[in-house]
Amino acid sequence: MKLPADKTAIVLIEAQNDFLSPGGTMYQYIADQLAKRGVINNLKSLLDGARGKVKIIYVPFQAFKPGFPELKPGGPGTEGLRGIEMEMKADWGTGAWVEGTPGPEIIEPLKPKAGDILVRGKLTLDAFHSTALNYLLRANEIEHVAFTGFHTNWCVESSARSAYDLGYRVIVINDCTATDTDREQLYAEEVIFPRIGTVMSSKEFLGAIS
Amino acid sequence: MKLPADKTAIVLIEAQNDFLSPGGTMYQYIADQLAKRGVINNLKSLLDGARGKVKIIYVPFQAFKPGFPELKPGGPGTEGLRGIEMEMKADWGTGAWVEGTPGPEIIEPLKPKAGDILVRGKLTLDAFHSTALNYLLRANEIEHVAFTGFHTNWCVESSARSAYDLGYRVIVINDCTATDTDREQLYAEEVIFPRIGTVMSSKEFLGAIS
Amino acid sequence: MKLPADKTAIVLIEAQNDFLSPGGTMYQYIADQLAKRGVINNLKSLLDGARGKVKIIYVPFQAFKPGFPELKPGGPGTEGLRGIEMEMKADWGTGAWVEGTPGPEIIEPLKPKAGDILVRGKLTLDAFHSTALNYLLRANEIEHVAFTGFHTNWCVESSARSAYDLGYRVIVINDCTATDTDREQLYAEEVIFPRIGTVMSSKEFLGAIS
Amino acid sequence: MKLPADKTAIVLIEAQNDFLSPGGTMYQYIADQLAKRGVINNLKSLLDGARGKVKIIYVPFQAFKPGFPELKPGGPGTEGLRGIEMEMKADWGTGAWVEGTPGPEIIEPLKPKAGDILVRGKLTLDAFHSTALNYLLRANEIEHVAFTGFHTNWCVESSARSAYDLGYRVIVINDCTATDTDREQLYAEEVIFPRIGTVMSSKEFLGAIS
Repeated sequence: MKLPADKTAIVLIEAQNDFLSPGGTMYQYIADQLAKRGVINNLKSLLDGARGKVKIIYVPFQAFKPGFPELKPGGPGTEGLRGIEMEMKADWGTGAWVEGTPGPEIIEPLKPKAGDILVRGKLTLDAFHSTALNYLLRANEIEHVAFTGFHTNWCVESSARSAYDLGYRVIVINDCTATDTDREQLYAEEVIFPRIGTVMSSKEFLGAIS
Repeated sequence: MKLPADKTAIVLIEAQNDFLSPGGTMYQYIADQLAKRGVINNLKSLLDGARGKVKIIYVPFQAFKPGFPELKPGGPGTEGLRGIEMEMKADWGTGAWVEGTPGPEIIEPLKPKAGDILVRGKLTLDAFHSTALNYLLRANEIEHVAFTGFHTNWCVESSARSAYDLGYRVIVINDCTATDTDREQLYAEEVIFPRIGTVMSSKEFLGAIS
Repeated sequence: MKLPADKTAIVLIEAQNDFLSPGGTMYQYIADQLAKRGVINNLKSLLDGARGKVKIIYVPFQAFKPGFPELKPGGPGTEGLRGIEMEMKADWGTGAWVEGTPGPEIIEPLKPKAGDILVRGKLTLDAFHSTALNYLLRANEIEHVAFTGFHTNWCVESSARSAYDLGYRVIVINDCTATDTDREQLYAEEVIFPRIGTVMSSKEFLGAIS
Repeated sequence: MKLPADKTAIVLIEAQNDFLSPGGTMYQYIADQLAKRGVINNLKSLLDGARGKVKIIYVPFQAFKPGFPELKPGGPGTEGLRGIEMEMKADWGTGAWVEGTPGPEIIEPLKPKAGDILVRGKLTLDAFHSTALNYLLRANEIEHVAFTGFHTNWCVESSARSAYDLGYRVIVINDCTATDTDREQLYAEEVIFPRIGTVMSSKEFLGAIS
């Protein structure tokens, strides 16, 4: 497989402390997977190797104000995963993605660098439902979208499914994604991603850019 | 759980011959699951019990012209599942969802009846990306969307994920969905749906409408 | 301006009897503009000249069942233009876009021909909110979208505005659009379209395809 | 008209220096309209009167990095209005919405206050195409969306058109919107907004909340 560099972008979803750093609200659940699969190092190598060749687009989750005034108590925005995350405990307090805490900050080893694009405002699982991701990809005439980040089967998968429906050619760089369990990681890699795109490793991706 | 009837809708995805009837392009893969889980009967009972109480919205896949002139050969629309389906063999020829074949017709026992809404034009996995489903739900002031149909982990799940992101309260009626394998059905029921909504049986759903 | 034929599509919005034929619900309002600007003939020449060179995509409005059971009485779907159209009188009864009447049929001189794409399901002003238009454009690797049809300042403009936001290069073929009054036609042509795309005549468009 | 306070939100679009303050890139074009129609004062009175009763949602345009690395030179993102704005001169340099300049900051008299919602990431004319606006409105169970801000016929109108298509009941508070000329302001107020919603003054809006 050959990937034309000027038509390809890496999308990195939610590389933030609440997921990836000790003390973060959801770190304890994903820590084993991150460690055993070397995901942060893989991502660092991927970004270092790809920067300057393909566009790198960061899509962090957007911080809420303390107390979540943006979401009506009991409203549909407090159901499911979002509601669970609002109750989770971090070392720095209760609730994920709270402004003023370290939770929403992008982790140190993966900070964006000059030329990277930082997309603001993500509040939904699927990045396309709450950000300018589609606009920025099309403004850059991107056709191949390589998804990375967290969690494999939630925000990465929801966004990758939509990318397929929006007419992109989808790639998932599997060693640069992680989620809480083997079951979820393997299911997404084996069942879902191969039927909406191409699954490859970070080395394969870097080798395919031309 | 109580579901206000005037704020609730059932969405039935792709109850069509290519999936559900002998001779259809994809029937052989799902036949065992349909039979052992009694899905068509469950759906019939659900619709018969719910009709007149809640809105029933059909979202079939839209037929292509023979030869698929709508999708550029080699273009992104021929990748992944869509490309696979274009090559599949039915008793009536090659390719799923071909106009003029029985494939795209809704199966006899589940034909829409007076008062049901029939949504046209679905060409993507996620119904919200290619139809008026969101418009029709909001035009009817629906807040609770109960997904049913095929396949559990593809079009049903993609649509349910988007419904969550669009601010609906999501229900999946599990005995009225099916896919090709236990692994996929159970994963969707156990891992994904409970975190974006409520999983219930058709009997539980009918009992919850008030 | 040069337009690469394989990256360009014509989108024709709502070329249907309810707008364009004597007896249609809204014909009386647009009849003078159609006649004095020769719009149907211009469209016929455009399609005849472009067919086989660029993709031609029809986006008719989707028919409602008699009595509009798809839209809750008093709900948000009955406000504004939609509500007005539900009350309009045609020679064949009350209400625009009613299934079983001639209203939703595409007018005779502009019937789709082999190779044209027919998009189903449009129920909103902006075609992108209720159809697979974006999917089909991207599946065909289209970058330049040339809008035509009716009404200039409603469905054509709403769709053209969205096309701009979705990262297409927008064209409006002005002599192939019409609306009810000079004020609306000129405002759209002079103020809006030049800032979201390129306004050109059908002859200029045909001359620009290469 | 009665507006239920818990189902109603005010959306304020792009109340930022580049539009509204002397020295801003586009201030000179709108200055007369702002002054003669008293728009900033009207907005201040509206927000002061409505705060604590209805949700107030700010949707500023998102800043670009200096040099606009987010938009590929010559790509579709540099066409039309966006391209024009990239070349405009402010007292503080060239280009609208540049990070590190005063341009993207919300103007002093209209700064958000506690309880207001600030939506991030807007890069398109239509706020719904690049932000979580739909998600946040639905998460708050909003049915009536009252648009205000700048420019009447661009971002306000594109967003209001989409809101109509997304099944909201649309309001435009006309004395809290402005654009560059009488022609544009009056056309939007007289022709477009009454057919997708209700046009009212800030006093009428405050009087209608119950």
